[in-house]
Amino acid sequence: MPKTKEQTLHISPDYIVGFVDGEGCFCISIAKHKTLRRKSEVRLLFEIEVKEDDRAVLQAIQKTLGCGNLYRLEYQRYAQWKPHVKLKVSNIKDIVEHIIPFFDKHPLQAKKRKDYLLFRKAAFLIADKQHLTDNGCKKIQRLKESINV
Amino acid sequence: MPKTKEQTLHISPDYIVGFVDGEGCFCISIAKHKTLRRKSEVRLLFEIEVKEDDRAVLQAIQKTLGCGNLYRLEYQRYAQWKPHVKLKVSNIKDIVEHIIPFFDKHPLQAKKRKDYLLFRKAAFLIADKQHLTDNGCKKIQRLKESINV
Repeated sequence: MPKTKEQTLHISPDYIVGFVDGEGCFCISIAKHKTLRRKSEVRLLFEIEVKEDDRAVLQAIQKTLGCGNLYRLEYQRYAQWKPHVKLKVSNIKDIVEHIIPFFDKHPLQAKKRKDYLLFRKAAFLIADKQHLTDNGCKKIQRLKESINV
Repeated sequence: MPKTKEQTLHISPDYIVGFVDGEGCFCISIAKHKTLRRKSEVRLLFEIEVKEDDRAVLQAIQKTLGCGNLYRLEYQRYAQWKPHVKLKVSNIKDIVEHIIPFFDKHPLQAKKRKDYLLFRKAAFLIADKQHLTDNGCKKIQRLKESINV
């Protein structure tokens, strides 16, 4: 049997695009604000979740993207599940300055690109503070309804 | 909002590695042969399954790998599930001549690499007809027990 070479971790932009097309998530969340009854709280989330033994892959992706935090997740309800680790980017500045330039330069190839483009539109509305107006909030609501379907 | 460029499908080897690290499956299957009672039927399967609207991505991966067949899957039991499409490679010649050279040249980066290396060992045993001996079959059984865990 031919030998394989020793591996060094190689996480290129194309690799990240392939990985995110499979495992990534672009989400728009709109929740009623706890204290300001008439205002909604609009949040964007870019996430990748994997089993904990792939933490090194997420760390390399985090480094290339230049943003995001890693969280360890334990699913106590499902005893047979291994702990997971999640890379999460929710800060609008990070999204506009890091996530969007990366995926504009290295476009997603699968149907997830449609979600990304809706997420991207929402991000520019939020960066422009339009989510603080009723009209802007409605626009983001419509983007949310089209994402992940 | 800045405009995005028009997209042309760009499925590079690194993209495929990232996608397979997320969505690919390397399986070893050992079943009792239907007619030869004392012989087991050993099969290898490399598979990627996605929703049907990503068929073009699988077609591009199939073209790059130079092997495999596409199957449309309908999950009638789960009415809300969209049809899926699966790229499947089970022919040992295709595995040895296409799949293994590809993933030796472009190594997987995530934990799936461990599965691939077990699958690869099994492939060389099968190509060497060792699965037709009791001893070879036991070796493949041990590889199977370590895969996907």
